[in-house]
Amino acid sequence: MTQSAGRRPPLNKDTLLCISLAARPSNIGTRFHNHLYDVLGLDFVYKAFTTTDIAAAIGGVRALGIRGCSVSMPFKEDVLALVDEVEPSARAIHSVNTIVNDVSVPGGHLTASNTDYLAVQRLIATHRLDPEGTVLIRGSGGMANAVGAAFRDSGFTSGVIVARNVDTGGALADRLGYEYAPEVGDRTASVIVNVTPIGMAGGAEASECAFDPATIAAADTVFDVVALPSETSLIKAARDAGTAVVTGAEVIALQAAEQFERYTGVRPTDEQVAEASEISRA
Amino acid sequence: MTQSAGRRPPLNKDTLLCISLAARPSNIGTRFHNHLYDVLGLDFVYKAFTTTDIAAAIGGVRALGIRGCSVSMPFKEDVLALVDEVEPSARAIHSVNTIVNDVSVPGGHLTASNTDYLAVQRLIATHRLDPEGTVLIRGSGGMANAVGAAFRDSGFTSGVIVARNVDTGGALADRLGYEYAPEVGDRTASVIVNVTPIGMAGGAEASECAFDPATIAAADTVFDVVALPSETSLIKAARDAGTAVVTGAEVIALQAAEQFERYTGVRPTDEQVAEASEISRA
Repeated sequence: MTQSAGRRPPLNKDTLLCISLAARPSNIGTRFHNHLYDVLGLDFVYKAFTTTDIAAAIGGVRALGIRGCSVSMPFKEDVLALVDEVEPSARAIHSVNTIVNDVSVPGGHLTASNTDYLAVQRLIATHRLDPEGTVLIRGSGGMANAVGAAFRDSGFTSGVIVARNVDTGGALADRLGYEYAPEVGDRTASVIVNVTPIGMAGGAEASECAFDPATIAAADTVFDVVALPSETSLIKAARDAGTAVVTGAEVIALQAAEQFERYTGVRPTDEQVAEASEISRA
Repeated sequence: MTQSAGRRPPLNKDTLLCISLAARPSNIGTRFHNHLYDVLGLDFVYKAFTTTDIAAAIGGVRALGIRGCSVSMPFKEDVLALVDEVEPSARAIHSVNTIVNDVSVPGGHLTASNTDYLAVQRLIATHRLDPEGTVLIRGSGGMANAVGAAFRDSGFTSGVIVARNVDTGGALADRLGYEYAPEVGDRTASVIVNVTPIGMAGGAEASECAFDPATIAAADTVFDVVALPSETSLIKAARDAGTAVVTGAEVIALQAAEQFERYTGVRPTDEQVAEASEISRA
């Protein structure tokens, strides 16, 4: 690929296009990737799309030689049947958020992965979370699925899924070989993880804290997947209690860097990713 | 659409994408359209693509809500079967160079047209070429097809197709109700048109002249479809002889402006088109 630091060439016939597919696209990915293309002088362009026909959209990715495709709700499962290769990260959770197209193959060759799962796995490793401990995960949606599998596959054999929804919560716990509970109650764990929207800006529970003070005090590490704001009530409470934290901003930055590298072959520095994240959320 | 003269917004989720599809893409369209988006402050982005699967590519245009698609060789006929509506300009010559997608319709609504045909028709009108006269057209390829139909549909009932290829030349003459001849010989006509690559920069016959001095002298108007250079040997000879000319640059600029307006709803001025053409060929 063409690269000359800080000088993205003008859009041309050879510029590689990366896209995202979501029912409700945001501007975050478009800003994040295009900012880093500028900074790194990469001959790429990124744009968010929506579709009502995911099979034809992926057919278009092949036929137009689109290099990368980020996948969001509600397409993360549907695309499994539309790609040529599924990496373990996506197979483990039956959910795709990243498709890389080898455009040198006529008709393309699509490889699916899940960088959310990979990011959580890497954070478990870099923060040295001890798999001999227990993990308590609040939530049972798509991201909880990725987080749970990442913990289990990192060696956490003992865990609890806490979710009000008995069906999804029970099913996730069963898949992971973890316990299920409808409420936290007086349970404690060495790692507690929030994968609900509690604490998310603009949400109904924006100012609430996903765990009570006793649960936080009993934990070695508090992990919040909510990234906006990065300093949720939960993270603040954990910092005040002197407990180690892993933030949603770390998850998002790591998964985005992973995705970016898969599309472009270039790994941005942590500083570049942090700056791009900030700009993309402004 | 968003418009604020001279300020194209940064690429975002709502930016409309226009593309081209060709076996061998050039950078001309990408430069032309993006330059005018900048000048006119339109929230659009344009990029050339190639494909080996035209049906899937057009399926992608629908599924991704791509606003416009310019069509080049070898797809101009194939796409007729892939659109929802064929305008008379494309139907007349069984050839499409422009597809507009009404993205407000789920799954899209694709309308095909041929702006080469429309541009030649308009030039016949604006240069007041007299349909009572005769037209002599050299060439029998796709563009000769468009040019011939534009003359016939502008009222020229008397014409000759000159082409070395008896099959394509004879067939085109038959479709138009014109005569066929393998060589110009001592024929004359009030309008003579070159639709061969003779005089084209970089071609094998770059410095040659498509008609001999006697034919040029006998004509009222000399029309050359070759656009690069715009001042071909033929155009120069015609100007020297004091004969009226229509240049390939006029054809290209007019068809591109027509295409641009169909995609964006905004008609650039002649000066803006001329500047964009120059920049796109630099």
